[in-house]
Amino acid sequence: MAFPQVEAFRGGENLIRVVGHRGARGVLPENSMLGFDFSLSIGVPLLEFDVVLTADDIPVITHNHRLHAPSFRDADGRFLSGEEPKVSSLTFEQIRQFDIGRLDGHSAYGQRFPDQAQLDGVRVPRLKDLLDLVADPKYGDAYLMLELKSDPDMAHDAVYRENLVGRILQEVRAKGLSSRAVLHSFDWNLLEECQRQAPDMPSSYLTQLPENADEVGEDSSKSVSPDFRGRPDEIPSMVKRAGGLLWCPYYADLTAENMARAKELGLCVAVWTVNEHEDIARMIDLRVDAIVTDYPGRVQRRLSDLGMRWHVE
Amino acid sequence: MAFPQVEAFRGGENLIRVVGHRGARGVLPENSMLGFDFSLSIGVPLLEFDVVLTADDIPVITHNHRLHAPSFRDADGRFLSGEEPKVSSLTFEQIRQFDIGRLDGHSAYGQRFPDQAQLDGVRVPRLKDLLDLVADPKYGDAYLMLELKSDPDMAHDAVYRENLVGRILQEVRAKGLSSRAVLHSFDWNLLEECQRQAPDMPSSYLTQLPENADEVGEDSSKSVSPDFRGRPDEIPSMVKRAGGLLWCPYYADLTAENMARAKELGLCVAVWTVNEHEDIARMIDLRVDAIVTDYPGRVQRRLSDLGMRWHVE
Repeated sequence: MAFPQVEAFRGGENLIRVVGHRGARGVLPENSMLGFDFSLSIGVPLLEFDVVLTADDIPVITHNHRLHAPSFRDADGRFLSGEEPKVSSLTFEQIRQFDIGRLDGHSAYGQRFPDQAQLDGVRVPRLKDLLDLVADPKYGDAYLMLELKSDPDMAHDAVYRENLVGRILQEVRAKGLSSRAVLHSFDWNLLEECQRQAPDMPSSYLTQLPENADEVGEDSSKSVSPDFRGRPDEIPSMVKRAGGLLWCPYYADLTAENMARAKELGLCVAVWTVNEHEDIARMIDLRVDAIVTDYPGRVQRRLSDLGMRWHVE
Repeated sequence: MAFPQVEAFRGGENLIRVVGHRGARGVLPENSMLGFDFSLSIGVPLLEFDVVLTADDIPVITHNHRLHAPSFRDADGRFLSGEEPKVSSLTFEQIRQFDIGRLDGHSAYGQRFPDQAQLDGVRVPRLKDLLDLVADPKYGDAYLMLELKSDPDMAHDAVYRENLVGRILQEVRAKGLSSRAVLHSFDWNLLEECQRQAPDMPSSYLTQLPENADEVGEDSSKSVSPDFRGRPDEIPSMVKRAGGLLWCPYYADLTAENMARAKELGLCVAVWTVNEHEDIARMIDLRVDAIVTDYPGRVQRRLSDLGMRWHVE
């Protein structure tokens, strides 16, 4: 059985897909409608983004389960300091008071994205806002890599998981977009719940070897993934056994061996988050299916130079 | 007398303007509607672009007076090879057959913009298309740095100059945008003609020292500018005497001395084309009025980190 939302991420002869990471974080504020608009406007209709639940049970698009200080400013225009409030402790209306249009260049995180446009008055979008956009018939080729972020304090609570997954599915189904989204997570328990509630929606398994986890400098998967330490070549089989159709490894974890294994198992392989020219080149050489990147134009440029495509005519 | 279209480019206390060069050439195909849309969408409403006349007297937006092989593809999707046809020898309909959505990464020119998004089916816009866009009331803060490109074979023909300037002014006036555009050129004779036909529209004088001209690797000003060799500090007075209100030097030509002289003379100083981080930093230190850049997000990031603004509230 071929799921259209898996095939949308699958590469092929002379074809590698490009996926806009959090919209296009290298170019525009992450997880903003502006970033999604940009990615769509350049012919990159595969969108990766992160969904968290607010205190009033609204699925919103933001990466961390706490407001991320280097990109959240208060009503006075100051970047947050001190303990970051949890998204789950705030209503959507409270979250909308923060401006996510700029990056704090004095933070290590901010320094990673020196080309990101800076705006004022940009708000955290709801999942619904993005679904409304891609439900427009002109974006019929858009597919969503919807990452479910679990609150690590709650991830082991089955009722919490059931509600998180249920609320997200409710919104996706209300827009008739279940065949246009894959459910994507580091949290394998959460993906099990996804499969239980939505057998029609493929699961996408994010993985990262602990030995490479410190390279990214962001919140990671440590508490919610199986322990892959020292056995990178077994990951594809574990994903397959768990019911995954997509495997999304951290790009540094990908080898010719585990890539070959994934292909034998029929997995679609989408690597994240590939930003540097030499890493993009290596992923193309390994013939991944899809490259998740903060710089979708950069990956297009490389593929174009090689005479390769990122979409089917 | 203060011209609003000069004041729009003027910096001030804690304020340096950002001007999108050919839209945003580092991010999107140059001189494309997509690039202008992008620049406007990130809060950079100052747009620099180039206008050339077709054989049927349509002002179109493209940089060179010949179709530029590294960014023009024919109907078969191949980049042009051999002698590049002149824009003035083709009708608008003929020019619209070419696709400007990609860059040839095998060319030295293409290699300069490794992050530029690659698209298919992008066409050379008419000046009218951009004027229509910025005439939309939501872009009331948009101002145009309209560069007039003269065909070097024709530049010394007064009838040619009169027609070129006349056709462009006709379009700008038809949209009621004469107070939102400055007329910008390397060709001082052409700017004299602009002042004759449009005393209400300020002239912007592009300059480049011959000793720095080879750094850019593009068609340049050599045949149409006065010879500034060895006298960089005299340029501001020459611009002022010629009737200029804006001076647009190549950034490498700017010194503390000629910058101070320009300020004494009341000139607004907009430097081009500033793309590298260290050059952006040096231009900010020199307190230019405006920075013309292929990477407007990058300049915003730098200004934001310094607590500086690029627009007046």
